[in-house]
Amino acid sequence: MESWPPGASGPTEAGRRLRGLRGADLAASASLLSGAGAEAGCSAPAVAAVLPAGGSGERMGVPTPKQFCPILERPLISYTLQALERVSWIKDIVVAVTGENMEAMKCIIQRYQHKGISLVESGVTRHRSIFNGLKALAEDQPNCRLSKPEVVIIHDAVRPFVEEDVLLKVVTAAKEHGAAGAIRPLVSTVISPSVDGCLDHSLERARHRASEMPQAFLFDVIYEAYQQCSDYDLEFGTECLHLALKYCHIKAKLIEGSPDLWKVTYKRDLYAAESIIKERISQQICVVMDTKEDEEHVGHRLEEMLKNELNHVKVTSGRDLQQIILEQCYNFVCVNVMTSDFEETQKLLNMLEESNLSILYPVVVISVQFLDYESVPFGQKMENLMQIREFAKEVKKRNILLYGLLVYYPQSF
Amino acid sequence: MESWPPGASGPTEAGRRLRGLRGADLAASASLLSGAGAEAGCSAPAVAAVLPAGGSGERMGVPTPKQFCPILERPLISYTLQALERVSWIKDIVVAVTGENMEAMKCIIQRYQHKGISLVESGVTRHRSIFNGLKALAEDQPNCRLSKPEVVIIHDAVRPFVEEDVLLKVVTAAKEHGAAGAIRPLVSTVISPSVDGCLDHSLERARHRASEMPQAFLFDVIYEAYQQCSDYDLEFGTECLHLALKYCHIKAKLIEGSPDLWKVTYKRDLYAAESIIKERISQQICVVMDTKEDEEHVGHRLEEMLKNELNHVKVTSGRDLQQIILEQCYNFVCVNVMTSDFEETQKLLNMLEESNLSILYPVVVISVQFLDYESVPFGQKMENLMQIREFAKEVKKRNILLYGLLVYYPQSF
Repeated sequence: MESWPPGASGPTEAGRRLRGLRGADLAASASLLSGAGAEAGCSAPAVAAVLPAGGSGERMGVPTPKQFCPILERPLISYTLQALERVSWIKDIVVAVTGENMEAMKCIIQRYQHKGISLVESGVTRHRSIFNGLKALAEDQPNCRLSKPEVVIIHDAVRPFVEEDVLLKVVTAAKEHGAAGAIRPLVSTVISPSVDGCLDHSLERARHRASEMPQAFLFDVIYEAYQQCSDYDLEFGTECLHLALKYCHIKAKLIEGSPDLWKVTYKRDLYAAESIIKERISQQICVVMDTKEDEEHVGHRLEEMLKNELNHVKVTSGRDLQQIILEQCYNFVCVNVMTSDFEETQKLLNMLEESNLSILYPVVVISVQFLDYESVPFGQKMENLMQIREFAKEVKKRNILLYGLLVYYPQSF
Repeated sequence: MESWPPGASGPTEAGRRLRGLRGADLAASASLLSGAGAEAGCSAPAVAAVLPAGGSGERMGVPTPKQFCPILERPLISYTLQALERVSWIKDIVVAVTGENMEAMKCIIQRYQHKGISLVESGVTRHRSIFNGLKALAEDQPNCRLSKPEVVIIHDAVRPFVEEDVLLKVVTAAKEHGAAGAIRPLVSTVISPSVDGCLDHSLERARHRASEMPQAFLFDVIYEAYQQCSDYDLEFGTECLHLALKYCHIKAKLIEGSPDLWKVTYKRDLYAAESIIKERISQQICVVMDTKEDEEHVGHRLEEMLKNELNHVKVTSGRDLQQIILEQCYNFVCVNVMTSDFEETQKLLNMLEESNLSILYPVVVISVQFLDYESVPFGQKMENLMQIREFAKEVKKRNILLYGLLVYYPQSF
């Protein structure tokens, strides 16, 4: 392995040079990272993420490595990738998996249409896997489509609930300080045992923190740390922040994270993750409109009202429905203003049936029709609308609950 | 507050005397603690437990303190009390709750028929609550029905899944070493922040452990430690093992615990606890027999077979049905050998309806009737048995699923 950068004279020298990179105003960094800043051609740092996912999950007590354990039929790692993909300013995501799981991982990427993911083979330890991910991002790699980022996020495949907010905070702090990581208060007191299995001493809980993920680093800092670190570090180390400190003299900025950052470690964590995902699902609804042009469309008005009640309201004219279904939206309102039949609803039902989304939990679809009683003969329209009963009976067999709603109004209203 | 023991000259002296109490053979202690040993009049240590339950649950992000949060409609603390009550050799359980929650706690004890529970008022910190619990157990308390135990277990109200096995291990080790506590490997690396919020140093994960509960102590050790410790300890301390070390020079024996010992801290932990309880429920079945005398009863044979498939199989002739229902058994088989009607099943159904157990999840009752076709006219019996359809229709409205099973056999078989 080549040492980087050429002619570097050691950690202290590297540390000095890296300090020269800092000094950006924290608030400015935050705005630079936003999409708007990037579009305006400002110097937003290029950000990539590395996810070590080579673990065997032995603590889980199940044969499947925990990152591949299904939650509502979907592998855990897919939720984590989704959380990172949603962040527009993360350009590349490098996932390190074992050779054995490489094909399975490719299938997951294809099935859930993950984008911007590169796969590398994991090492036998977590640190070796991260190092392999960093190598793939380094400039000196031949035949590599990836470009070296200014800042790299290191995250765990088994922490699916990471939010953009904390990612932005660690990246901004890493640009400023060279390294940054999320921390949480300790839940239990930490003790140090003696060799005979008795208490040697206990640590003051208030003076210590649990080091969590995500962490972020100036790429040059963490890559140099990995290049310089010993085989012992690579075999037995657990903490990237420690490597940055030991080999590049960078004192990582610590960022208080939310409880959501916890790592899925034991079987009970899978239960918890499933319940959290179910709760999120119950808070998600998609309004499907039969036209996309009109800002005054009733779909947009419905969106405003629903936002007061639910956390995630999406409005679509149908183009990205496939993606919304993939992201496990279980609640739909089809608003038909233009058409007087169920073509749009039928399209949605077909997509839902193909997706198998309703295998575990029922999907609810409400089809809304507007009937202007001044312009359409009522009897004719009603006959048309009563077809929905047949549709509903049919799709109920596949756990899709279809309801019809008729809004009967005078156009002059 | 009086210092104990009278005339004690300080921690070192106390430590020396307490060391004299030890030396019991570990295996012998284990057998002494068993019910059989106690009945034979051996010197099983008197064991009590103290549960601090005065916390406000601020980390949970919900207004109800976490120990009172309902899981399947039942407060978390009730599961923990149940886990301790099941252990025959724990004589007394002292729960420390706030004055505000005292009435609510009394209602829980009454509703779930907890036994051997004493309530004391909690202090403003965890250590002060434990101290109040210990004071109630100390000999010098006037008008107290409790007697001083040899060993005291300290456990958390929010760790409902503690097993007898680990309780026995910590109590046995406490008798031997003066103090003992359950530990678990660290899930995250622990770090020490500097005053400016940056990483000062990280701790080697393999050399540290999370200190969990239960812990156990020779009563005289931990009571003396609490009597001697400073107000600072009582206000800001978190670790009983530390007090035993600091004030009595007792190095606690550390016992590797199972992942089940985790503490319900965040909302996600409530989700996990609920899923674990649901899983346990699905593994529990109660066989109700119409007679208790016959060892050869088909109920006992059924028990043997079911034990191969399920974790918890109980057989009862009906006497302790009320308690079994309270402990949230959702699956019943009523085996009727002696009677040819549904009297026993009807009794069970009445008890289930009164208990409101089926509010959240359906209760399943299978009523099994034996029909000797050589001795009873088939038509007459069948007519009788068909009544079950009416019962089933009736109880289904209250979420009880009743099934009838007719075993039609020749007596000579």
